[in-house]
Amino acid sequence: MKSVAILGPGLLGGSIALALRDDAETNVRLWARRSEALEEARALGVADLVTGSVEEAVEGVDIVVLCVPVGAMEDLVRRALPKLSSSTLVTDVGSVKRPVCDRLAPLLSERALFVGSHPMAGSEKAGISAARGDLFLNAVCILTPEPGRTRPAAYELAEAFWTRLGCRVRSLLPHTHDEVCALISHLPHLAAAALVQNVTAACPEAFGFCGPGFRDSTRIASGLPSMWTEILSSNRVAVASSLRHLIALLEPLAAQLERGGPEAEAVIHGFLASAKVRRDGLSQSTIL
Amino acid sequence: MKSVAILGPGLLGGSIALALRDDAETNVRLWARRSEALEEARALGVADLVTGSVEEAVEGVDIVVLCVPVGAMEDLVRRALPKLSSSTLVTDVGSVKRPVCDRLAPLLSERALFVGSHPMAGSEKAGISAARGDLFLNAVCILTPEPGRTRPAAYELAEAFWTRLGCRVRSLLPHTHDEVCALISHLPHLAAAALVQNVTAACPEAFGFCGPGFRDSTRIASGLPSMWTEILSSNRVAVASSLRHLIALLEPLAAQLERGGPEAEAVIHGFLASAKVRRDGLSQSTIL
Repeated sequence: MKSVAILGPGLLGGSIALALRDDAETNVRLWARRSEALEEARALGVADLVTGSVEEAVEGVDIVVLCVPVGAMEDLVRRALPKLSSSTLVTDVGSVKRPVCDRLAPLLSERALFVGSHPMAGSEKAGISAARGDLFLNAVCILTPEPGRTRPAAYELAEAFWTRLGCRVRSLLPHTHDEVCALISHLPHLAAAALVQNVTAACPEAFGFCGPGFRDSTRIASGLPSMWTEILSSNRVAVASSLRHLIALLEPLAAQLERGGPEAEAVIHGFLASAKVRRDGLSQSTIL
Repeated sequence: MKSVAILGPGLLGGSIALALRDDAETNVRLWARRSEALEEARALGVADLVTGSVEEAVEGVDIVVLCVPVGAMEDLVRRALPKLSSSTLVTDVGSVKRPVCDRLAPLLSERALFVGSHPMAGSEKAGISAARGDLFLNAVCILTPEPGRTRPAAYELAEAFWTRLGCRVRSLLPHTHDEVCALISHLPHLAAAALVQNVTAACPEAFGFCGPGFRDSTRIASGLPSMWTEILSSNRVAVASSLRHLIALLEPLAAQLERGGPEAEAVIHGFLASAKVRRDGLSQSTIL
């Protein structure tokens, strides 16, 4: 891995650049569209080359990492295509994988190596100013190779790349990835926003009394609305399904609370106890 | 404040003791029921006196802080009553306030000073081993004085006590406190547990792919089931109501996701954008 082109100077793109900065043997190029972003990236000194030209960024590199919103990836790849070699790995950091893989894999099939990636790292903060060189340390990175479509060399290069950034690499089929992320990322985002909006609607003064529980359970509600709308929309069937299941869990809890009494308490205790066992298991594993 | 009796050696009681430990002028007494808890507290050296006798703990002290589950408070106060003086402040750290104030205020009205307290601090971890001397630093502490019931001296003593522990003291009526905490603490707890149980039900393997978003939004699901069942049950009408409102916010979001298209995206974007403004406001204020 002698050269990497990072397309998109946001939190993830910037963090990849920072993670590679101290490696003198890797040439890091960062592409940004907006001139303010170019200036900011240059001022921060995160890459060997910061450029507004896609062609200049990708020409001759070993790896291209798409760090733009999912909807902007296809156009970017079309612009990069003429400068890609057949041994270049193209991957991405999108939070949904089926739409990305369905669009990019056919486009790149004869022109470069491709596999989808999703590092489970991030922050409610956006932009390169929030980037951190250790963002990927110990994070799970999900690769989404597809039988008959993804070449082994693509998977191997991507696996080596994310491992070098400190990730623990796992793989899922794209549609399985999207169902898993609906459950563990997209739905929690919607729930966090709903917890906030519930306070806004009922009693905005209550915000003045919040403690660490509310802080942590709603932190992700500060994420970029445009980015998250795109994620939720791109994965809307799976998110809607997991949201319906969540509501189906919450409805009987509301009924038990309304009923009250020892039986209701036993049901609620059982629910909380099961959740605790699972959540404790996560904390005790190496996952979180 | 020359002497404080902390009744209950859990996370909160232990943290109060630690916060006062370095103050040579304050005599700190800690009462625990179980012999293991007594031994642990003695081994940690958190108090000047660690005792299994309620009478010994409270005799002659200026302040008594009840740090036991809400349901255990009344019995404990009855045992302490003979040793309380009329100038002793009794307060508590319970997460629900109307049941506590309705039971304790009449019991103590002629015998001691009383006002309810609820420091908005804690952890998903339980027990004195998780106690921290800085747990209350910058936390909001809600006092619940009642017109015609709470004596000004009780409020003033409690305010000075929590301020000395680093809290920012505010006040609410007990029933308002319980409605506010349903929104910002009790419902988020239930939602965190439901997010975990939703994964368990749909795809337990998904736990192996979690990132920091899931970690933070479900952290509180590791709280003690018995304690949280008591809190939710004691405040069940307000929690059920806020849960019904949350479901009423989530239902149309599910419908929009199922529908899809630009109008649905606009609705979802508007929802996320409003939540972000509120949540950002919390981070930028001194609240969180």
